[in-house]
Amino acid sequence: MEKTTNLKLILAYDGSSFVGWQRQASGISVQQVLEETLEKIAGTRVIARGASRTDTGVHAMGMAVSFHWPAERLAPEKLQRALNALLPDSIRALRLARVSSDFHARFDARWKLYRYRILNAPVADPFRRESVWFIHRPLDLEGMRKAAGLMAGRHDFSSFAANPGYERSTMMRHIRRCEVIRRRAGPPFTGNEIHVEVDGNSFLYKMVRTMVGTLVEVGLGKREAGSIRELIRSRDRKLAGKTAPAHGLYLMWVKYGPPAGN
Amino acid sequence: MEKTTNLKLILAYDGSSFVGWQRQASGISVQQVLEETLEKIAGTRVIARGASRTDTGVHAMGMAVSFHWPAERLAPEKLQRALNALLPDSIRALRLARVSSDFHARFDARWKLYRYRILNAPVADPFRRESVWFIHRPLDLEGMRKAAGLMAGRHDFSSFAANPGYERSTMMRHIRRCEVIRRRAGPPFTGNEIHVEVDGNSFLYKMVRTMVGTLVEVGLGKREAGSIRELIRSRDRKLAGKTAPAHGLYLMWVKYGPPAGN
Repeated sequence: MEKTTNLKLILAYDGSSFVGWQRQASGISVQQVLEETLEKIAGTRVIARGASRTDTGVHAMGMAVSFHWPAERLAPEKLQRALNALLPDSIRALRLARVSSDFHARFDARWKLYRYRILNAPVADPFRRESVWFIHRPLDLEGMRKAAGLMAGRHDFSSFAANPGYERSTMMRHIRRCEVIRRRAGPPFTGNEIHVEVDGNSFLYKMVRTMVGTLVEVGLGKREAGSIRELIRSRDRKLAGKTAPAHGLYLMWVKYGPPAGN
Repeated sequence: MEKTTNLKLILAYDGSSFVGWQRQASGISVQQVLEETLEKIAGTRVIARGASRTDTGVHAMGMAVSFHWPAERLAPEKLQRALNALLPDSIRALRLARVSSDFHARFDARWKLYRYRILNAPVADPFRRESVWFIHRPLDLEGMRKAAGLMAGRHDFSSFAANPGYERSTMMRHIRRCEVIRRRAGPPFTGNEIHVEVDGNSFLYKMVRTMVGTLVEVGLGKREAGSIRELIRSRDRKLAGKTAPAHGLYLMWVKYGPPAGN
């Protein structure tokens, strides 16, 4: 058997033209494009493991991927350059480093940060139309912050899971931070970008987007901030808000280390 | 004759899908889309005057436009909302205000600011691929700043005009500021965004992009900063650098007021 080097790759990608990270019959995935590019360079099949499935249209600023690379062929620095030369420019290899042979980007992931970007402004920005969720009506930040604080913690997140039936085991997840951050939209645009940052150990299907959709209902005054407690307790997806659109969501980073112990 | 109100409109647009501001047989222009939208609302033909032709693919954050609007039909605030409802989302109406009946967005323009965005980083950003010129090799900012300083002032800019034959009158232009500004690319991306800002009274065809292409040659060490003096004196376009790509250029604002007296 050929000797291989285990590598950890950090990717940024514009999710607009992909069905997400994971291979799907329904369209082109980031995994498929990456694996085909790796195969082109290596001359042999390479399997890439991603830390997170990202859904169709969801972006990544720091997706972590691991794969076993035929050892003698290319140094990591050269492989990174070869990847950036051959990948479509919607996907970039940000960093590439050797890791221990048993490292697995998905199974060893401890914490992930998702950022959801909302543009809350009187007029939309033509340059951000594929990268933020535009909301015209002013959002009540204080209400959203209070609600976000109630979402943080160790909970059964069934109320925020799109397909509870698909989940095989526990719906308990640990969100160690759920924060609503305001930034100026930047001239010539008035208004703000509102970022919802969710840092957790694991996420149910469409969980972040459902949390954001629910927070926006609070921000629009359609729902009381304090009602989040009851919503979590209900474990009923029908009581949560609509799923926020995919194009505002970014996987920011994945952290590794000793087991979090939840 | 129907009474009209003269209006000044500030537009932002993503130039990627347009042949520029001005109507062209070769494709869809911002002017055509705007005039068709105004006609849809007014029920009669409306002619829109833009402060600047922007070339194919060039963006605007603050294009100024004037047009005479059939007076009684819609208040400016309502017209702005109607425009944003009917225009494609690549074009947004940022502001709309009444102006004196003889105001003309093109003839009365005094100063315009263009910003050119370069991403100077080891790895490109998938989210900026249509909004900056990506340059991998490190640019020498000090050299570029020195060269930019020599470009500012009142000069015959023939060396930077794409089609000198097309220009009917003087090639003298007044650039009151030409500045090279560095900003961080922002995490997870290393490197910088380098902005070239050019504030002038009027611009020859592709002048800013040729200035930027020339500055980048200085930044790459292919050309001495001090050679700019000689280049301007030569009035020979063949001695200047390549025209920088359109997708990094933004018309930032247009200023009006008493004649600048050049």
